[in-house]
Amino acid sequence: MNLDSAGLQVLDRAECMVLLSSVPVGRIVFTDRALPAVQPVNFLVVENHIVIRTGRGSKLAAAARDAVVAFEADEFDAERWTGWSVTAIGQARAVVAPGEIERLSRLPLTAWAPGDRDHYIVMRIEEVSGRRIRDRVTRR
Amino acid sequence: MNLDSAGLQVLDRAECMVLLSSVPVGRIVFTDRALPAVQPVNFLVVENHIVIRTGRGSKLAAAARDAVVAFEADEFDAERWTGWSVTAIGQARAVVAPGEIERLSRLPLTAWAPGDRDHYIVMRIEEVSGRRIRDRVTRR
Repeated sequence: MNLDSAGLQVLDRAECMVLLSSVPVGRIVFTDRALPAVQPVNFLVVENHIVIRTGRGSKLAAAARDAVVAFEADEFDAERWTGWSVTAIGQARAVVAPGEIERLSRLPLTAWAPGDRDHYIVMRIEEVSGRRIRDRVTRR
Repeated sequence: MNLDSAGLQVLDRAECMVLLSSVPVGRIVFTDRALPAVQPVNFLVVENHIVIRTGRGSKLAAAARDAVVAFEADEFDAERWTGWSVTAIGQARAVVAPGEIERLSRLPLTAWAPGDRDHYIVMRIEEVSGRRIRDRVTRR
């Protein structure tokens, strides 16, 4: 088992992709007026891309256009002090081609938030890394 | 009820602080070598500050030193498509005074990750904002 300097288990790319695909909500991290910003979103992993559905006029839609962003998903268990976190980095782009919007709208990707969510942001996963905190019992 | 343009319920500062104090894990968002970075951490809210315990040599300890960072916590329910998210923005600082380290070490703040975690980062909450996605049923 590969551990980092902090004693966390380092996940390989395949594990990261499986975990990333296993949860419905992640967090996109971007810069908004020179300040760090973070917003939870519903998403899907499609091949090597993260697809996010949002509102056309949203702060996210404006800020994540053609920017390098981070995307994080995790799951933690407060009883067992265990969990995992995966972070992807990549270039985000707003989808503007009608054909691509039509294709993406057929994905099983529903935004939990109300309102029109007919805008898609696609992020190409360029780097992905992940860590797992092992169970207190099994790591002893 | 105050709704934003996306139809999400806007939480006031008091609600944000209560929710932020209700979960053991949040995510600190910072810049690492000019790229957006995000890391889950155990934390406590102490008055108007977020206290994070980490390893002395960690990437986080280096990057969050005297930087403006964002801090996000959330909880989502995949069955009911509901949940909340709170984001705080503020200046982070590494705690170096022995007296302050001694005082912080008495807090009920335990890092879930293994290894030495004798380094503290304190972030003063300058801005806090939050949103709640209401239940699909009750909002109809």
